[in-house]
Amino acid sequence: MSKVKVCVVGYGTIGTRLADGAAKQGDMELVGVADVAPTLQVRALHESGMPYPLYLVDMGRKAAFDALGIPVAGSLDDLLEQVDVVLDATPAGVGAKNKELYRKHGVKAIFQGGEKDEVADVFFHGYANYEKGLGQRFLKLTSCNTTGLIRAVDAVDRLVGVEKIAITIIRRVADPGDTHRGLVDLLKVDKVPSHQAVDLMHIMPHVKATGLLVHTPVTHGHIINVVATPKKSVSVEAVLETFRAHPRMRVVRIEDGFDSNTAFFKYARELGNKRGDMYEIGVWEECVAKSGEDVMFAINIPQEAVTIPETVDGVRACMEMQRDRLEAVGLTNRYLGLVPRP
Amino acid sequence: MSKVKVCVVGYGTIGTRLADGAAKQGDMELVGVADVAPTLQVRALHESGMPYPLYLVDMGRKAAFDALGIPVAGSLDDLLEQVDVVLDATPAGVGAKNKELYRKHGVKAIFQGGEKDEVADVFFHGYANYEKGLGQRFLKLTSCNTTGLIRAVDAVDRLVGVEKIAITIIRRVADPGDTHRGLVDLLKVDKVPSHQAVDLMHIMPHVKATGLLVHTPVTHGHIINVVATPKKSVSVEAVLETFRAHPRMRVVRIEDGFDSNTAFFKYARELGNKRGDMYEIGVWEECVAKSGEDVMFAINIPQEAVTIPETVDGVRACMEMQRDRLEAVGLTNRYLGLVPRP
Amino acid sequence: MSKVKVCVVGYGTIGTRLADGAAKQGDMELVGVADVAPTLQVRALHESGMPYPLYLVDMGRKAAFDALGIPVAGSLDDLLEQVDVVLDATPAGVGAKNKELYRKHGVKAIFQGGEKDEVADVFFHGYANYEKGLGQRFLKLTSCNTTGLIRAVDAVDRLVGVEKIAITIIRRVADPGDTHRGLVDLLKVDKVPSHQAVDLMHIMPHVKATGLLVHTPVTHGHIINVVATPKKSVSVEAVLETFRAHPRMRVVRIEDGFDSNTAFFKYARELGNKRGDMYEIGVWEECVAKSGEDVMFAINIPQEAVTIPETVDGVRACMEMQRDRLEAVGLTNRYLGLVPRP
Amino acid sequence: MSKVKVCVVGYGTIGTRLADGAAKQGDMELVGVADVAPTLQVRALHESGMPYPLYLVDMGRKAAFDALGIPVAGSLDDLLEQVDVVLDATPAGVGAKNKELYRKHGVKAIFQGGEKDEVADVFFHGYANYEKGLGQRFLKLTSCNTTGLIRAVDAVDRLVGVEKIAITIIRRVADPGDTHRGLVDLLKVDKVPSHQAVDLMHIMPHVKATGLLVHTPVTHGHIINVVATPKKSVSVEAVLETFRAHPRMRVVRIEDGFDSNTAFFKYARELGNKRGDMYEIGVWEECVAKSGEDVMFAINIPQEAVTIPETVDGVRACMEMQRDRLEAVGLTNRYLGLVPRP
Repeated sequence: MSKVKVCVVGYGTIGTRLADGAAKQGDMELVGVADVAPTLQVRALHESGMPYPLYLVDMGRKAAFDALGIPVAGSLDDLLEQVDVVLDATPAGVGAKNKELYRKHGVKAIFQGGEKDEVADVFFHGYANYEKGLGQRFLKLTSCNTTGLIRAVDAVDRLVGVEKIAITIIRRVADPGDTHRGLVDLLKVDKVPSHQAVDLMHIMPHVKATGLLVHTPVTHGHIINVVATPKKSVSVEAVLETFRAHPRMRVVRIEDGFDSNTAFFKYARELGNKRGDMYEIGVWEECVAKSGEDVMFAINIPQEAVTIPETVDGVRACMEMQRDRLEAVGLTNRYLGLVPRP
Repeated sequence: MSKVKVCVVGYGTIGTRLADGAAKQGDMELVGVADVAPTLQVRALHESGMPYPLYLVDMGRKAAFDALGIPVAGSLDDLLEQVDVVLDATPAGVGAKNKELYRKHGVKAIFQGGEKDEVADVFFHGYANYEKGLGQRFLKLTSCNTTGLIRAVDAVDRLVGVEKIAITIIRRVADPGDTHRGLVDLLKVDKVPSHQAVDLMHIMPHVKATGLLVHTPVTHGHIINVVATPKKSVSVEAVLETFRAHPRMRVVRIEDGFDSNTAFFKYARELGNKRGDMYEIGVWEECVAKSGEDVMFAINIPQEAVTIPETVDGVRACMEMQRDRLEAVGLTNRYLGLVPRP
Repeated sequence: MSKVKVCVVGYGTIGTRLADGAAKQGDMELVGVADVAPTLQVRALHESGMPYPLYLVDMGRKAAFDALGIPVAGSLDDLLEQVDVVLDATPAGVGAKNKELYRKHGVKAIFQGGEKDEVADVFFHGYANYEKGLGQRFLKLTSCNTTGLIRAVDAVDRLVGVEKIAITIIRRVADPGDTHRGLVDLLKVDKVPSHQAVDLMHIMPHVKATGLLVHTPVTHGHIINVVATPKKSVSVEAVLETFRAHPRMRVVRIEDGFDSNTAFFKYARELGNKRGDMYEIGVWEECVAKSGEDVMFAINIPQEAVTIPETVDGVRACMEMQRDRLEAVGLTNRYLGLVPRP
Repeated sequence: MSKVKVCVVGYGTIGTRLADGAAKQGDMELVGVADVAPTLQVRALHESGMPYPLYLVDMGRKAAFDALGIPVAGSLDDLLEQVDVVLDATPAGVGAKNKELYRKHGVKAIFQGGEKDEVADVFFHGYANYEKGLGQRFLKLTSCNTTGLIRAVDAVDRLVGVEKIAITIIRRVADPGDTHRGLVDLLKVDKVPSHQAVDLMHIMPHVKATGLLVHTPVTHGHIINVVATPKKSVSVEAVLETFRAHPRMRVVRIEDGFDSNTAFFKYARELGNKRGDMYEIGVWEECVAKSGEDVMFAINIPQEAVTIPETVDGVRACMEMQRDRLEAVGLTNRYLGLVPRP
């Protein structure tokens, strides 16, 4: 079977990781990546020996690349001619503009969470609603927080059913190296409900959700504390077992040294993961508890990498590479090296 | 009626504020404050013209004060001879050692939350269990987070009854100017349940509580998101009305500019409050919501000043100045300028 | 002698402090303040009982103030009719637009550092070039960093002459409560030379200056480390004596507890200064040293309040209230309570 | 020629990187690493498949490793029997205690900057005083800031001679993931001169140095601004050429996106460097300038990895693997992939 051909448009924080994630899939071929300027990421691609061919969104700016000796494989149009699916990781709003181009070239596209819902035919999450993405033309992924949150809530929902959740999102406000946004010495609050709660209800309409979003001056991962009301009584241990069996979750213990969001980043750096990335969301064993019959648990969302697996799932869905949800996510997991860690 | 004579031992972050709070009470007399070294606070007291006489815990260190021209009114023993009640605001653990001295001088004492519960006859909160403090010799206040949390939960509890709460505490990790503690670019998590949930159950034994504590690198106030299960159905508006009527709570709106914990500090600085302090806990109107029949609300805890009113209440209780709870807290409020802001 | 009538346009971080600073001057009358919206500062003015009458820049927005019960004294035009000098503290760029209005009303104006130099007839610093402001119509103050830097460099220059300086500015990136700007976990660098070095050469053209500006994620004061080449050899002690004798400088010691920029803020809060403000720049005694014949010293710039005294000096200059530099700054200092602290 | 056998004692932030750095040297063999507890780093070593054998400092704690299935190759004594040189990266003060053990086993040792100078026969820097380390038994490396600083100052010194330097160190106060130290919203100052200036004079006694150290709440690299007085006039371009030709320095431009300390980290993550590490110090092209005849330049110190090359140089020196300085550092550079980037 020939490989599905994909490309990445927008080679930034998400785009670089999508490229690596797609390149690892044995049944996909990453044809190339496209961007507009010789950013730090493009310079690093060059210094790394151009593992992926680079295409330009705007050939009028080719001189800037030539001056630096960065080889250009062609234009975005050239790239789109060669692929089946585009992974669009451009800044919020640009994807919507690119959509016409994708339509013109007859390629499918998967947009990230920054785009408006209307850009896509279906609002997608690999684990929660894989079937809805089958054969669709334009998918939109959930945002990083929502992607991680749904992983955990979907797991409990498939175990005992979830009636409602009330969440507190402690959000990192910038990525490492961002100089265009930030907060100093304050916790910024947003109006309730946060969009993550609303988005979860879009993907999982049978669950009621509300939540508070608090922005904090950190960069290495969001933390979400979830108070979930299950449909049937469930023990802490049963929830933990479910989480441990999930290839995209990693249950750790504070007493082992995982005492912060940054601990996951530190650990992933030690593992030698590229960029210190982790695809899995984290769960602290000591932070799963009962509140009456409700279950409370805290998860860690590695905002830079968490949406990569579900985006790859999206390729499988829209191209109908696998029709079965578990078969699809299982293949994504295998190629990304994601295994349960009981 | 003669005034009740109080003093403050430990003139640090809490002690300075207790001194000011007690001095404002028309029916109390602040006899003096005691400390061990010419700290920044003591130097500022001096530069301000010694509004409160200063006593030394260790007269052997008097030379250091003499060298700076800071007048010393006497020893801690001299001070204790003149008072009815000590407000102990020494570092955690020192209060327990001081207790013998207080006993020797036959004075009552109110300890802060850093001491162990065993130091006191009763674990006290002015609004929630005033009656338990009546006539007692040694009281211990709840910690800053717990004090603020109980204010809000007690208010809802007296309205419709509270069955259980699940809380997420987003804790500021240092006070402004602290150089001996801090975190950088991380969110530290503690094991569930946090001590604040446990302490609340101690004061309000009819409520079940659990909670997660997350330490964040900020200095201007904790935020607690509370998911409360009421005994009777209650509307968001009824909860808000109760909060607005509470003299120690301040309901604000994000859209008016109160969009962070630090906004309260900024506002109190503008009001001309000494040190930019605020005694009230904050509530964001847009962050009170229902989750099924549960009520979710977020409160802001000004950690430096929040325990002052309840500590003053403690003087009223242990000295039996008022036997009625509402009469007592009402007087404290009046002298501190705390009024409902509907 | 009748008092000089001043008003403040733009009641934000600087404007609120200019109002208080002008109101303290025995020979000036603060007629009122003007703003555009019911900001936190305006709400606090209201809760404080309207110590200053409030005028509206845009009477079309009066309904918003009426709805809150905030009394409006009139329009900006009404205000300008009553004053001699405007202290313009509007956001950068707005002052330049307001200038025509000021010209129309025949009032003088003093702009803050955010405006472009062209807005003013003279780029002004009370201590360094008071004489240049005499009788001028439009003055522009130096920025907060430059104002504080020039205070110190001017003092050394008047002592022994300064040939050149090389500075490192460690800049706080936001004010407390700012949610519209910030950095997280990074030190941002700007191209050399920083504008503060260039601006200093504008005010003190006989001194050569260069410098590096590094933005840091803090809010309570900039630190500048200055390496100054004097024209004559000078001892550390002589420099310190000069600084101690300066009413707008405060020499402190790390070993006394002043171990950070925030320590000054903490101390000013204890003094009961409104908002915890300090007009003086700080100098750490243990951070003045020789490097060969160069003198190295570190100063602390309280960014929110530091320009207030020099702006008040500007009123004296442009209105020719005093023709002598030292007489003028001396009066400003006396009314602000600024005295040498040897 | 047989390889020199080395081991690492203390598998923490520095130890993990020393292990990787030594393992890359074609003429050295990393026999193993030793630690005391199943830390995050040891767990990651295990999850990575034990690329390096693990030895235990305290065999009494072996059960904890067995319980986790982490293979233990033997005791620290077993390890020391097999090696020529120990790279000691234990917490400050522990190295001094270990020294007796190293002496007992007749092995040489290289200590890190946290140890006191007395622990070693020579205070060592690969580029600045390689010859002093030849054949010595116990070396101590300079600290991370001093190591990077000396690289740059030594380069200018060898070009035109350096008479004196005055430095401003803007120090990151914690490493990513540290929960035991930190500052929040403040810039802490230390007494002048900082130890880095003093240490530089120890290694380069012909240069006079002083400096200010300011601690800042960030984690991704120190920045040092250097004002150097050269013995001969030198142009900015000549200094830049020297820096560009240095294999352990990386000259970048702010306008290319390297606008902060964290930008280097971000770039190294993109390069796929393990842990996002960079051995080189950074120099911002736009931050090299003249101040009269002085040269001012700002450098970035990647604190986690910067001492690795010089420590490896130390192995070469103490084992007399190369007698020539440039030959030695050149080999270290080659094995670490460090090349000039003009």
